[in-house]
Amino acid sequence: MLTVFGTMALDTTRTPFRIEERILGGAATFASLAAGTFTKTAMVAAIGDDMPPANIAALKKKGIDTKGIVAVRGGKTFHYDSSFDYNLSNRTTLKTELNVIADFNPVIPDDYAKSEYVYLANNDPKQNLKILKLFDAPKLTVCDTIEYWIQTARDDVVRMMSETDGVVINDSEARLLCDEVNIAKCAKKIMSLGPRFAIIKKGEHGAVLFDSEERVFPAVAFFLDDIADPTGAGDSFAGGFLGHIARKGKADFGTMKEAVICGNVMGSFAVEDFGVKRLLAITKGDVKARYEKYRSLVQF
Amino acid sequence: MLTVFGTMALDTTRTPFRIEERILGGAATFASLAAGTFTKTAMVAAIGDDMPPANIAALKKKGIDTKGIVAVRGGKTFHYDSSFDYNLSNRTTLKTELNVIADFNPVIPDDYAKSEYVYLANNDPKQNLKILKLFDAPKLTVCDTIEYWIQTARDDVVRMMSETDGVVINDSEARLLCDEVNIAKCAKKIMSLGPRFAIIKKGEHGAVLFDSEERVFPAVAFFLDDIADPTGAGDSFAGGFLGHIARKGKADFGTMKEAVICGNVMGSFAVEDFGVKRLLAITKGDVKARYEKYRSLVQF
Repeated sequence: MLTVFGTMALDTTRTPFRIEERILGGAATFASLAAGTFTKTAMVAAIGDDMPPANIAALKKKGIDTKGIVAVRGGKTFHYDSSFDYNLSNRTTLKTELNVIADFNPVIPDDYAKSEYVYLANNDPKQNLKILKLFDAPKLTVCDTIEYWIQTARDDVVRMMSETDGVVINDSEARLLCDEVNIAKCAKKIMSLGPRFAIIKKGEHGAVLFDSEERVFPAVAFFLDDIADPTGAGDSFAGGFLGHIARKGKADFGTMKEAVICGNVMGSFAVEDFGVKRLLAITKGDVKARYEKYRSLVQF
Repeated sequence: MLTVFGTMALDTTRTPFRIEERILGGAATFASLAAGTFTKTAMVAAIGDDMPPANIAALKKKGIDTKGIVAVRGGKTFHYDSSFDYNLSNRTTLKTELNVIADFNPVIPDDYAKSEYVYLANNDPKQNLKILKLFDAPKLTVCDTIEYWIQTARDDVVRMMSETDGVVINDSEARLLCDEVNIAKCAKKIMSLGPRFAIIKKGEHGAVLFDSEERVFPAVAFFLDDIADPTGAGDSFAGGFLGHIARKGKADFGTMKEAVICGNVMGSFAVEDFGVKRLLAITKGDVKARYEKYRSLVQF
């Protein structure tokens, strides 16, 4: 079983072609939906009264264990409002309202404690450190983080990473955290904190897996002609990655390589429609077919 | 036989770690040396009195046919002076002296006319158009270009592309030429001019091959821990690409995919030392070994 902890959000996403207001989003949501295609997945997150019950029902329908989602009475759900440029490559943040996630004290349902796999999606590193202690003996713990936490809580980010087995992080954020432009050197710095692997996500250029035995696996992104909304691509990548590992029940380098491709596949689905729409619509068959399509795409 | 036409240069290359003055460089030099590992390669280029004979001797020693190199009496060789930042990712041009290449009227030795493969490395597109007419019936012609020509001779660049079978171009230059950020759309625009394939080079992120039958092949760059001098990576890519195709005597999509990997391999060698030093030092065995290493690197 994989437990995902992180943000659930109501996002307002604006592109020059379309605006969608207060749609279901958040790092934990994308990661859980992506992972749920592969393995039994449970979510921990805080929401407010304003979260439409239909959103929770949609997660449940996809097989996600939503018992760990805490509805805070009188609270408002985390809200993120952003707009993309014409190329859908640069995002401008218009509004970030932390709301109920600001002072959330993470708790987990009893049966989550035996989770073998834990993914700490982007979230307050202090909360991530707290929740880690609630699990009995996870086989693998992985975290992500973003610019906001690196700039406001760097020490906690470092502490969080030092207590996990692996880190999944964007290239720009790895560079900011490590004060180093070369992503291989960033990965080494991150692993020197404790984790035995680091995955640097490069957006449209794919991702690179590094491990502490100096092995490397670079993978291109799945090729798409067009995208609708880049939101959640990285979180879906992490969900696909962890989901495959949890399904296989092992995290040797060969399995992690396959997991990186599963991550790329899930990231590619996520961006095909607004918010989590595409992740809610796809089947296991779609995922398997795209994995094979990816394989033939890169084969020579 | 492959004929490469383009610049031969004396480069001054500055990094924060080392400066090398007036070393052998130029698009045709890198491309020829890279291609020469795979196939019989002949060069056409203009040089001045200041080109050290040892440089020509070094090319000959690697098996390059240098008969087509024209020494212009009283002329000076093309000189390019540039410096890289600490990340070796941003280059600043300090000096560009076209010298003998400014008004070169390309001629080829008689036996070059029967070349089946022609690569027009970065150079004045008008000269490239002229030299194309000197070949009897090449099976495949490919060109590259750079920002300078797109900005000063856009119509000639378009005309040149319309008369070649394939284009190899940097992502930033493709975007500038096509006024479009999406590289798949850039490739389509380029192919709409005539070529049946376009390769968009993305530096450290690899390259993507597109063809007119809507096939795509994205390939990561070979992974290197460190680089010494990025100069010539793209030209060496093109040389490796064309060299493999000329060796195989065919340019179907499967062969082009392998050729893209050969291009990546040659680009990765080029950046391991200053100028063409590494390309002069490597053997066919080194190239074969790295091709196999690349295959195992990306396999999953």
